[in-house]
Amino acid sequence: MKIIIDAMGGDNAPREIVRGALIANKEFGVDIILVGRVEDILQVLKDDGITDLPKGVEIAHAEQVVTMEDKAATAMKDKPESSMVLSLKLLNEGKGDALVTATNTGAVLAASTLIVKRIKGVRRGALVPTMPTPKGYCLLIDCGANVEVTEEYLLQFAFLGSAYSKLALGVDNPRVGLLNNGAEETKGTQLLKNTHNLLKNAKEINFIGNVEGNDAVLGTADVIVTDGFTGNVYLKTVEGVGKFFGDMLKSMFKRNLLTKIAALLCYKDIKAFKAKMDYRETGGAPLLGMSKPIMKAHGGSDAWAIRGAIKQAIPYAKCDFAGYISGQMETMKAMTSNAQSEVQT
Amino acid sequence: MKIIIDAMGGDNAPREIVRGALIANKEFGVDIILVGRVEDILQVLKDDGITDLPKGVEIAHAEQVVTMEDKAATAMKDKPESSMVLSLKLLNEGKGDALVTATNTGAVLAASTLIVKRIKGVRRGALVPTMPTPKGYCLLIDCGANVEVTEEYLLQFAFLGSAYSKLALGVDNPRVGLLNNGAEETKGTQLLKNTHNLLKNAKEINFIGNVEGNDAVLGTADVIVTDGFTGNVYLKTVEGVGKFFGDMLKSMFKRNLLTKIAALLCYKDIKAFKAKMDYRETGGAPLLGMSKPIMKAHGGSDAWAIRGAIKQAIPYAKCDFAGYISGQMETMKAMTSNAQSEVQT
Repeated sequence: MKIIIDAMGGDNAPREIVRGALIANKEFGVDIILVGRVEDILQVLKDDGITDLPKGVEIAHAEQVVTMEDKAATAMKDKPESSMVLSLKLLNEGKGDALVTATNTGAVLAASTLIVKRIKGVRRGALVPTMPTPKGYCLLIDCGANVEVTEEYLLQFAFLGSAYSKLALGVDNPRVGLLNNGAEETKGTQLLKNTHNLLKNAKEINFIGNVEGNDAVLGTADVIVTDGFTGNVYLKTVEGVGKFFGDMLKSMFKRNLLTKIAALLCYKDIKAFKAKMDYRETGGAPLLGMSKPIMKAHGGSDAWAIRGAIKQAIPYAKCDFAGYISGQMETMKAMTSNAQSEVQT
Repeated sequence: MKIIIDAMGGDNAPREIVRGALIANKEFGVDIILVGRVEDILQVLKDDGITDLPKGVEIAHAEQVVTMEDKAATAMKDKPESSMVLSLKLLNEGKGDALVTATNTGAVLAASTLIVKRIKGVRRGALVPTMPTPKGYCLLIDCGANVEVTEEYLLQFAFLGSAYSKLALGVDNPRVGLLNNGAEETKGTQLLKNTHNLLKNAKEINFIGNVEGNDAVLGTADVIVTDGFTGNVYLKTVEGVGKFFGDMLKSMFKRNLLTKIAALLCYKDIKAFKAKMDYRETGGAPLLGMSKPIMKAHGGSDAWAIRGAIKQAIPYAKCDFAGYISGQMETMKAMTSNAQSEVQT
């Protein structure tokens, strides 16, 4: 297993990216290609007192760096020699089994569609974060790649999310829910009503119906299907309330000597909860729909988060995700064309 | 000040509704009309050992009861003798200054449009809950009444929310934000981009631009403008994460003797936070856009929540909300027609 790492992408590149990759190389025994400016990468190693590249780690030089300021649509054209573009090319050429990058989300979305390309028949790539629930985790598809969608996109999201949950996360018969403003099937926009009908008839999907925001948070579904706009609002709202409560707890426990003692008494629980909420463990979001495994790490990733994203990339690279989806493509196509003729009649 | 109370609406009617109304009558010195089955209401009083109707409290008999099972669109026609319909008629005839009801949301939305009617020129009524933020509260408009919207609806929501924040809640120059999937003005659907442009030019509104889900939760804006679908997902997601954290805290503090002691040490802070999060204090959501003040209380309201909704109804009834909005109607109309001609050219 060889993982390509965009060593220059993200707020803390290259230092934290390189460090995270080396941890993963040691801990998971995966080979690593660090893509980026050789001198910058070597400087990180030198600063950390590493004189030789560890076994299984190589560097592929790329002169340019895509930043958060680069325009998503033109970053690839503007910076053809960037670590992002080279990483995608190496992945496309089969020089590695998966790519991990913390770069500009819009830029990598656009460039991966052009370089790595989507699985044949897949209409749109989707960004799929893993979100903690009280008893586990669930996937959110999409969370921002596609602000406007069609029934077909949403149907495909359901297939993509369900397949990833099953193949990469090992969830047995994953429950797929459609994020909506009510549980009844008559709820939501016309687009959602149509999508609900499509999903109801998808035998390949364990569709549990509409899920509301609170049900989604509380773990009713393993896969939450939604458009990128609503998914983004959902994701950020969860983050916001998390911060609200986290800050409240912190200031509560710091109030005075007695509450500081209280914090000590709850130390174990607080630690376990913090770990559960730590995005660094599950912070990689696969870019589903692409023909090769791409894992997008948080822009603010530190070494531990990069290690986490690589850890997530391994099962994704091991399963034949694209092959599985290709095998379902005829089913998806038939369902959508049936639905379209229904609308026409 | 006289408040009309739909004594039969909600899961805990009439008992909790009547009790809440009597608390408000005593605490705030407002007169009350309890609308509903006389025998049921008198039975509540009898059970509570009250032999005579308190001063300022009267009963208006209505035979029928609208339940959560009644269809929103036809409840009014199906149950013309219901407490909901009579309450709205009394409000419309000026027999009271405001109406508080915990009945079926869809039903009261539909019926109020027909009986009380919207302020002339207002396109849609909106349900506007108050949501806690770290340092205060903000309004969410809309949270479910309008799943599909136009630029004009959203513009009007901004005016309605801003006016309510100013007149009823006393917020000075309320900050109005548009819920979106990014802060930049190029973000979101075409509808949101158009709305952003409209709001930017609204001198009457303190428009602070797009707000993301996390900013909204953390109190960036006093008024969050969104469509009813996204607003509903947002509201329920906040509720869900709140429950997630609340349950976590509870089980943490109950784990063992030491954590129980910790809970005692933090007692004051926990109590203050619980109070802040208690929907019963601010659980009334005005139905903005109607020509008279209607306050929708939570379906599961207990007496304290009904008291809270009445408390909120008082400043709403005192300010001339409909008059204020009518005064801004020409501005809104001009803005929307300008925008439309821009789109056409």
